[in-house]
Amino acid sequence: MKRKTFGPVTSQQVAQIAGVSQSAVSRTFTPGASISPATREKVLKAARELGYRPNAIARSLNTARSRIVGVVMSYFDNQFYPQVLEALAQKLDELNYHLLLFVGDRDGNVDRIFDQIMQYRVDGIVLASVSLSVELSEECVAAGIPVVLFNRSEENATASSVNTDNEAAAKQIAEFLLAGEHQHFAYVAGLSDSSVNLARQSGYINTLNHHGIKDVRVVQGDYDARKTAKAAWELFSSPQPPDAIFAANDHMALTVMDVARFEFGLRIPEDLSVIGYDDTGPSGWPSYALTSASQPVDAMVGATIALLMKQIESENIEPEQVVVPGVLVVRHSARRPQFGVIEKDGLSLFQPQEVE
Amino acid sequence: MKRKTFGPVTSQQVAQIAGVSQSAVSRTFTPGASISPATREKVLKAARELGYRPNAIARSLNTARSRIVGVVMSYFDNQFYPQVLEALAQKLDELNYHLLLFVGDRDGNVDRIFDQIMQYRVDGIVLASVSLSVELSEECVAAGIPVVLFNRSEENATASSVNTDNEAAAKQIAEFLLAGEHQHFAYVAGLSDSSVNLARQSGYINTLNHHGIKDVRVVQGDYDARKTAKAAWELFSSPQPPDAIFAANDHMALTVMDVARFEFGLRIPEDLSVIGYDDTGPSGWPSYALTSASQPVDAMVGATIALLMKQIESENIEPEQVVVPGVLVVRHSARRPQFGVIEKDGLSLFQPQEVE
Repeated sequence: MKRKTFGPVTSQQVAQIAGVSQSAVSRTFTPGASISPATREKVLKAARELGYRPNAIARSLNTARSRIVGVVMSYFDNQFYPQVLEALAQKLDELNYHLLLFVGDRDGNVDRIFDQIMQYRVDGIVLASVSLSVELSEECVAAGIPVVLFNRSEENATASSVNTDNEAAAKQIAEFLLAGEHQHFAYVAGLSDSSVNLARQSGYINTLNHHGIKDVRVVQGDYDARKTAKAAWELFSSPQPPDAIFAANDHMALTVMDVARFEFGLRIPEDLSVIGYDDTGPSGWPSYALTSASQPVDAMVGATIALLMKQIESENIEPEQVVVPGVLVVRHSARRPQFGVIEKDGLSLFQPQEVE
Repeated sequence: MKRKTFGPVTSQQVAQIAGVSQSAVSRTFTPGASISPATREKVLKAARELGYRPNAIARSLNTARSRIVGVVMSYFDNQFYPQVLEALAQKLDELNYHLLLFVGDRDGNVDRIFDQIMQYRVDGIVLASVSLSVELSEECVAAGIPVVLFNRSEENATASSVNTDNEAAAKQIAEFLLAGEHQHFAYVAGLSDSSVNLARQSGYINTLNHHGIKDVRVVQGDYDARKTAKAAWELFSSPQPPDAIFAANDHMALTVMDVARFEFGLRIPEDLSVIGYDDTGPSGWPSYALTSASQPVDAMVGATIALLMKQIESENIEPEQVVVPGVLVVRHSARRPQFGVIEKDGLSLFQPQEVE
């Protein structure tokens, strides 16, 4: 519906189109104010149609910042996320902000706790390991609340995001395994609707395809230890088991290693190479010594907080997609190529040469 | 100073003794109200002397609950605590409460962030892996805010606490190792001011002493991976290395196992038995298969929340010390005794017989 007036759209116009009171419009755009979901939906729909921007109202009604950032997280048994949470809490504390923690479903989305987050008048929201529906993303923006997706991304970029370059890292992993002269490749996937999983899967498989490897076995680990063990069983029981496995994250890679060694008697890396992603604590433990693509927690959390603070202070939502560089940390779980491994700061890293 | 009047002590009397205004007294007992630390100290001192109890004021000025529970936590690389945090957030969410997370220093205490916690008008506080000074404990009680210490305890019991029976579990571990016919015993300690560490240390060593083992080597791991590795080096490099080690928690036990295997070529359990405490995720991973005393997260968190809710709802602080029973989960990191190991719910557990 096109705007019929000149000048900025007023809340009265929104009220008229939505068929609600002007007070309902105010309340819709005041984080924490009481409003029924049905009324809120009507108001937001009308606001979208008219191109209404409520910043002035939100600002005047809510001048005091709560200095609270809402963090929605799940998947605590993947040690990456507790590390992230600790870093978030510490860095926010340095800025005199605090962290209200919401635990989401691992594979669900955050909608059901959204109302609760909004009640607390948070100044910003970080979504780690959960998805956000497009409608809610838009509601946060409409309410003047910046949202940062952590280690995930969405198609339409209403929210900001911080990721490593998943596709490039997965490409590098494929090149590492090719240079190590492996023959049979497999991929243990995370959840099929995870943006990070999809980027890693395509980076890996496309690179292998490009080098003439067409039959890459894909099994679903789904970020779950039990499912991953089952998927690993499938792979090692098959007539042609893989000798090179890339698991979408360390948590799953470690499970694959344990199944390979303790249930199939395979030697790692002599019989089988395994590579993960995240470079979490256990990856460095000698019992695993997992080769893994790093996700630099401090840099990613620093970028997340910078994005939040910039938008909180400017009182302007400007979604920005940040990509933080990582490295492939070479340990002992995968056969090393003859060339390309360098030593730096006490770690072995892989820098591929041109392999054609 | 004795009370000079009959009937309940009034805020006016407190103000007089403290040399401040009555408003300052009100503000001291209103969580979140603005008051200088110096004034607050004077008021609290006078209140203690007179036996003043401010519940009526606190209640009338603060009738709305925030429905926020403050959780202070540190030591995130010990997987036990992220599990606890996840369980706390989920159970609070079921009761429509939320979790404000404060990250404390691992070995420091919580005093420096106390003011920040109080600003948020939390309905209750859970302290996990940090200590609370006696004065602050009293301030929380004075402000009508229940405090629960999680996996720790304090001498004077102003706060409630939830623990497993650390001393009894450590005794059971000593009995297990004795029944396995070990010769040379060692203990890898956590922080020396940790109540949990002290209870485990004394349970273990006293039991060994009781059975005629006098020379138990104690080294400091201090809940730190690097220090633990160094302490393990000391033990294995010594003229008479131990063949039985109890480490105060799993996080340190896993480090001890890695040093033993990868730096000294020791076989576990053939050459060395290692037992931990917590039964966290990695303990069950086949690469470690660590025998460990369990800390049942759900039961401990359930008890913590029950304690909070009881006091929040009764508006009455009544400190209670809860002990949750755990079991010794027998895996493969320690030589098994001939008798006493039973199978239950897919786990092997140890039930010692009378050993004299």
